[in-house]
Order: sequence, then C-alpha cells, then structure tokens
Amino acid sequence: MNSQPATPHVVIVGGGFGGLYAARSLRRAPVQVTLIDKRNFHLFQPLLYQVATGGLSPGNIASPLRAVLKRHRRTRVLLAEVTDIDLARRRVTLHHREEISYDCLIVASGADNDYFGHEEWRHTAPGLKTVEDAVEIRRRILTAFEAAEMETDLQRRRSWLTFVVVGSGATGVELAGALAEIAHYTLRRDFRAINPAEARILLVEGADRVLPAFPPSLSHEARKSLEKLGIEVRSRTKVLQVEPDGVTLETEGRQELIDAGTILWAAGITASPLGRLLVQGNTDLLDDKGRVIVEPDLTLPGHPEVFVIGDLANCSHRAAQPLPMLAPVAMQQGRYVARLIARRLQGKQAKPFHYRDKGTLATIGRAAAVGFFGKLHVSGYTAWLLWLFVHLMYLVEFENRLLVFFQWAWNYFTRNRGARLITGRWPQLPPGHQEK
Amino acid sequence: MNSQPATPHVVIVGGGFGGLYAARSLRRAPVQVTLIDKRNFHLFQPLLYQVATGGLSPGNIASPLRAVLKRHRRTRVLLAEVTDIDLARRRVTLHHREEISYDCLIVASGADNDYFGHEEWRHTAPGLKTVEDAVEIRRRILTAFEAAEMETDLQRRRSWLTFVVVGSGATGVELAGALAEIAHYTLRRDFRAINPAEARILLVEGADRVLPAFPPSLSHEARKSLEKLGIEVRSRTKVLQVEPDGVTLETEGRQELIDAGTILWAAGITASPLGRLLVQGNTDLLDDKGRVIVEPDLTLPGHPEVFVIGDLANCSHRAAQPLPMLAPVAMQQGRYVARLIARRLQGKQAKPFHYRDKGTLATIGRAAAVGFFGKLHVSGYTAWLLWLFVHLMYLVEFENRLLVFFQWAWNYFTRNRGARLITGRWPQLPPGHQEK
Repeated sequence: MNSQPATPHVVIVGGGFGGLYAARSLRRAPVQVTLIDKRNFHLFQPLLYQVATGGLSPGNIASPLRAVLKRHRRTRVLLAEVTDIDLARRRVTLHHREEISYDCLIVASGADNDYFGHEEWRHTAPGLKTVEDAVEIRRRILTAFEAAEMETDLQRRRSWLTFVVVGSGATGVELAGALAEIAHYTLRRDFRAINPAEARILLVEGADRVLPAFPPSLSHEARKSLEKLGIEVRSRTKVLQVEPDGVTLETEGRQELIDAGTILWAAGITASPLGRLLVQGNTDLLDDKGRVIVEPDLTLPGHPEVFVIGDLANCSHRAAQPLPMLAPVAMQQGRYVARLIARRLQGKQAKPFHYRDKGTLATIGRAAAVGFFGKLHVSGYTAWLLWLFVHLMYLVEFENRLLVFFQWAWNYFTRNRGARLITGRWPQLPPGHQEK
Repeated sequence: MNSQPATPHVVIVGGGFGGLYAARSLRRAPVQVTLIDKRNFHLFQPLLYQVATGGLSPGNIASPLRAVLKRHRRTRVLLAEVTDIDLARRRVTLHHREEISYDCLIVASGADNDYFGHEEWRHTAPGLKTVEDAVEIRRRILTAFEAAEMETDLQRRRSWLTFVVVGSGATGVELAGALAEIAHYTLRRDFRAINPAEARILLVEGADRVLPAFPPSLSHEARKSLEKLGIEVRSRTKVLQVEPDGVTLETEGRQELIDAGTILWAAGITASPLGRLLVQGNTDLLDDKGRVIVEPDLTLPGHPEVFVIGDLANCSHRAAQPLPMLAPVAMQQGRYVARLIARRLQGKQAKPFHYRDKGTLATIGRAAAVGFFGKLHVSGYTAWLLWLFVHLMYLVEFENRLLVFFQWAWNYFTRNRGARLITGRWPQLPPGHQEK
C-alpha cells in the first residue's frame, strides 16, 4: 500500500460535497484516487433537519460512497479516519496506523458545531451535523410531547412543550419551522391530554435579525413567516446558560430564564480539526472559525500539492468576506480542484477559483421560503417551489430523489410525517409524574 | 387517572399485530381503550430483515401508533413500560409508578430472542427483534466487508467475509438469502481489494431441514434455492460455542470451528416476561417458551377479564401443536378479542377462537420463495410474487406501502439497496491491519 503508484495518486479526505464532487470530476483524469471518509455514505446535510423532524428517513438523504463511485475504476474508497498528515513526506496516517502516500492531497473534512467555548452544552443542546444527531433530536422532540402527555403538573407540562432553537441561520429557521408544523398539524389529533398546538417555540438569534446572511428585507419576510407559524423570534439575544431544564437568555441587558424540555443548537460551526494539522502550528493561516486561509487556487500556502476546500477553507481572495460555508461553494471547489489537477498534468496553468453564486435559499415551512439571486429577491410560494426543486436536483442518487419527492408530496397533502420514530439512545421512555 | 371511567376501560399492553388489531377493532365498541407500548410505533417485524440488509429504512416499516389511532377518539396511547400487573385489584403499574386500572386487560407483549440459556451470546450474535437490532446487524454486515477490504492478512480477510446465520426458520432463511444477494449483486463493483462474491454464508439449523415448520418438500425447494445463492446449509447442526471471532458447530458428533466476523441469531424466540407476572407463580400455565396457556376464548385461566394474545399466548385447544408465533395468528386473535368484548357488553356469548390458516410464506431471495396453503404448495416466482403482495397489503400505512413497493421495484431492476448506512453504535470504523 505504501508503494508509489505508477500514475499520480490523489488522496481526498472527506466525502461531503467538496470531496465527492472532486472525486467524481477526477473520473477521466489519468490519476489514481483514494477517497477517505469516516462514514460509508455521503450525507445531504441541507435536508438533515427533515430527518430530525420525522419527515424523511436517514437513508433517503444518504448515499453509500461506494455505490456512488462504483463505476470509477481508478477510485478506491477507504472507510477510515485521518489522524495525521505529514506534509513533508506527503503521507496521511489513518486511525489504524496505516499510512497512505499521495502526490496530491485534497482536504475536505468539513465542519462541526461550535459551542463557542461551552463544550459542556453539547450534550444538553445537540446540534445537527450527523445522522446520529438527527435521530437524537427526533427522539428528544417526540419524547417531549410524550412526556407532556403523561405529565399532570401544569408547569412541568408547559416546560416539556417549550422548545428553544438557538441560532437563526438557515438550519435554525428550518428546524423551528418544521417544529411548528409538527405541533400545529402533524400531531394535531395524536394526543388526548395535551394540545400539541400549545407548544411554545423560541428562535434565539444574537444578531438583530433572522437569517443574518440574507438581505434585510428577506430577513423581515422570514420573520413574518416564522411568526405566522407561532414561533417567538428573539433577536439581539444571547444565550448565557444552557441547562437540562432550560436556558438563560439576555436581550439588551435584560435576563430571562426559559423553562424548556428541548434545546437545539444551530448557532455556529467550526472547521474540522484537520485544519490545525495542515497549518503545522502557524495559526496565522487559520481564521476565527478554524478555517484554513487558502491561496486563490485553493492550495495550502507553500504547498501547491495540497488543496483545502469546502467548509474547511477560508477563500476570500476576491471579496471582503470569505465565501459562505455552503454546499454550492464546496461543490464548485471540488470540481475546480479536479480540473486544476487534470490541467497541471497536461502542463497547463489554471485560473484562480471563481465562485459562481447561483443564489441562496432558505425554507421556513410549507409554501414559505426566501431566496436571493444577486439583486433578485424571492419569497413565499415561488421561493418554496424553487427550494424544493433545487434540493431534489442536488440529491446524489436518483432513487433518493424519487423517495424524497414522494414523501414531500405525501406530506403536502396529508401533513403526515411518517418517520417519527423514537429510536436509538436510551431512555426512550418519557419521564412521568414525579409523585403519586 | 385512577378513577374508574363511566364506560368500561380496556387496557391493551403492546402495539404489535395483536394489540394494534385489537385496538382498531374496538373502535366502535362502547369502551374506553388505553394502548400501552414501550415504543411509539408499530413495527412490521416480518420485513425487519430488509432493514438489517440495507434494502429498506426503519421508517418504511414502522408506523407511529398515535398516527394509526388518531381518529379513535376514545383510544388513548401511552408510551410506557408495564412493570407489574395486579390481577386482584385489576391494575397495571407503569415504569414511572403510575397505576392504570382496567375492567378488561389484553396482554399482547410479544416475544424476544431466545439464547437457550446462553445470554452471554446475545451481544456477539445479535437477533432481529427491534429497529435497533436491525440497524446494529446492518452495521456489522457492512463493517465486515469494509474490514475485509482493509485487511491484508488473507486468513483474517477470509474470516471477515464469513457470515454465520444461526437458525433456519423464516427469519434465518430470509437473512441468509438477503446476505447472499448483497454479496453477489449489490456490492459487486463496490470494492477494489476484495471480491464480495467470495463471501461465505453459513446457515446453521439444529433440525434435519431448513424451514422446519414447512412441509418437507418445500424445505427441499428452499434448500435448493439457498444453495443456488451459494449459501452453505448445515442441518442437524448444533451451535456449541459463540465467540467474537467465530462459532463452534457440532454436526452428528463431529465438531468444527468456523472463523467468522459476523454471527447472527435467528434460532428461537421466548415469550415476553409479562407471562410470568400473569400466572403468578403457577408455572403450569406456562409452556417451554414462556407462553401463557390460554382458555379457548384466549382468557387467562380463572380471569375471564384478562386476555393473552399473539406470541405471548399458547393457544392449542384444537390441535396437538400450539398455534405458531406468526403475525396472522396475532391479528386474528386481536380482532377476535375485540369482538368478544363487544358481544359481552351486549350480554352475548362468544364462540371459542378459531384460527383461519390462510397459508404461510417465506422468501429466500429474488424470485424465490416457498409457501403452503393447506395442501397446496407453491414455490419459485409465483410464491415470491404472493409474498410481495401479502407483505405490502399488511403494511399498516398506505404511505409505507408505496415507499416499500417503490424500493422493491428499484431493487429488482438495479440490485441496489440504498439504505446501507453504517450508523449508530460505535465503533463505526472497521479495524485495519494489525501490524505495519
């Protein structure tokens, strides 16, 4: 395994949008490709919130990497974790101590939730990054309604029916919106002791408006849609404390304790720890989110054979702001790097990476979404249809497109969300009355 | 909650086929119904092996109990575990110590895997009873292929590619068949170092033939189909020892050690521990599988207000053999008890329970199944189509029927199994080479 292959060997770390698109675009290049990922599937993270809210099954938004790349004869997939990168010897070390040498390395290991120094909140307020996160959030949301149904103490019941979503980027807005739909429609006739529509859903945001990355007018539209769904939007609000039975918020100097049985974290993300390995102690090359500040051709400074793409890269050569941590950026970067490698092998130069911004969309709920395409803003039904279409098109496997489309159509007409199972981690049973 | 409701209160323990069909059939009866289950969904266990082998997602074969019963206004669902039953005071105690009183009790808490006194084998050789079991078995099967791909030692690679299924009832036969299809077709082009088709699959059976509950000629047909798929069938073989790296088998006095990375248990089931609570120490009322020996009207002897149905009941009043632990028996018993309760309230008598045997089917794989309907035997393509049709029809929700049908059709034409995710329990990464 350690011997140098006759053809150049490209090692890709990460099978997300960046890594997978790089691997697919290298199909016809005269290189050997090894794609390394900790998981055996590519996950379509933009729809993970629908798994967390019982609308889709994990299998519908995940595609086995081997299945996607099975026809790429010169591509090998390794289910392994990269534990070290030796830039001088051009080798990556895997979890079981195997070393893989490369001629060219593409690091696309993505990002994780950021708790801003409060790692102890991670367990209490799970974020939404993996299939396991989504199944766990689904378990907590559904168990909260079950616990409320069994609770006779009104204050505790109220607390079980209170949900706090921290962070109002696309993920937070989508989670809150889906939660409201569950409470108002999906569970409408499911309970006998409680009325799920009485659930209180708070969306907490530190900035002065929801969807801070969107133009202000669309933030305004989004807020109106959220409030129409009964969601309490708390902007300019900081989270001071997260505890199993609630959160302490601070809005413009005023503190408030919210009793809540379920707290979900969508407040920020931080780049994968592989960034630190790549810069070898030179933290000037990392930004505040732990992203590697790359050259205009997405290489690691001083290492033209190492590319950093996707959420792990800070790519800001053409603008004041680095490019956003979004799937389209990662996809385009993956394709760009693949083409650059192919050109290099032909002795040709490549232009710097240029991101073609095709627009940004976020959905709030049924028939409600916002989006902007340069100066063109859309909202409401049109934006929602666009959102549906774009997300279906980017799902990796055709089978999953059909499965997701069918379940969306079913949900649209029946309001049902068939995948609302309480599974996985124990306890699966809700706590009941304290005294008898 | 402890106050007696004005209308008679029927408490049903268990939301499997027996309990759910009883609840549904009580819809128009003048009673209050409380259905208690540890899980928030009804699970269609006959298709669980397809989740374990990546063909379906858990959500496709599970239906939220509240969703199924939402229009039953006088029916309440409780997500709780029954920890005690007080027959004298007519009360059940739940996990959080709440007590529920009943006028009429239907116990349908099903069965669990039986390790015949070797509880220590449970972790090494998981059985297939819950969604978590299926996800865990899926993880083990897929990880075994991944570990083989990374393994350079040929003997260890061979061991990773060896799968032992213990027990050749319908579940064992279906699991082995699906495993063979994965190895020969689904994963065909997925790996670079190994050829998945070299996987060795052993099906171990203590009796002298597979599917011992079927007529011998169909067992013969099934065995032929299994062998055509490359499965080694070991009949008249006992499992002496189960260890993480293999099993010790004994065939007619001859012992053999099989190195195997994956061992799956489908050898036997034992009734739920609630049976012991019901008979109050009178073990004469329990059979060797822990089932309660019931009266011809499915009541607990001496307690006409307590019914025991499904896998928990030994119902043998009309035959030498008790009725098999199968879904159709439980469904018919659930419906029968519901009707009996309604008749009693009208002051009418009810006939003893009579099982209408509509036939039994088992599938081996693509276009291969066996079945018998009284004296009529079917096998091959016809039996397989029948199997597909029957299983689709008995899925509880219409949405799931369509989702399953679509995925079966997709699998039929592409051999793909899109839900082959390695998720849940850690480690998710395969062990690699031992030395470097």
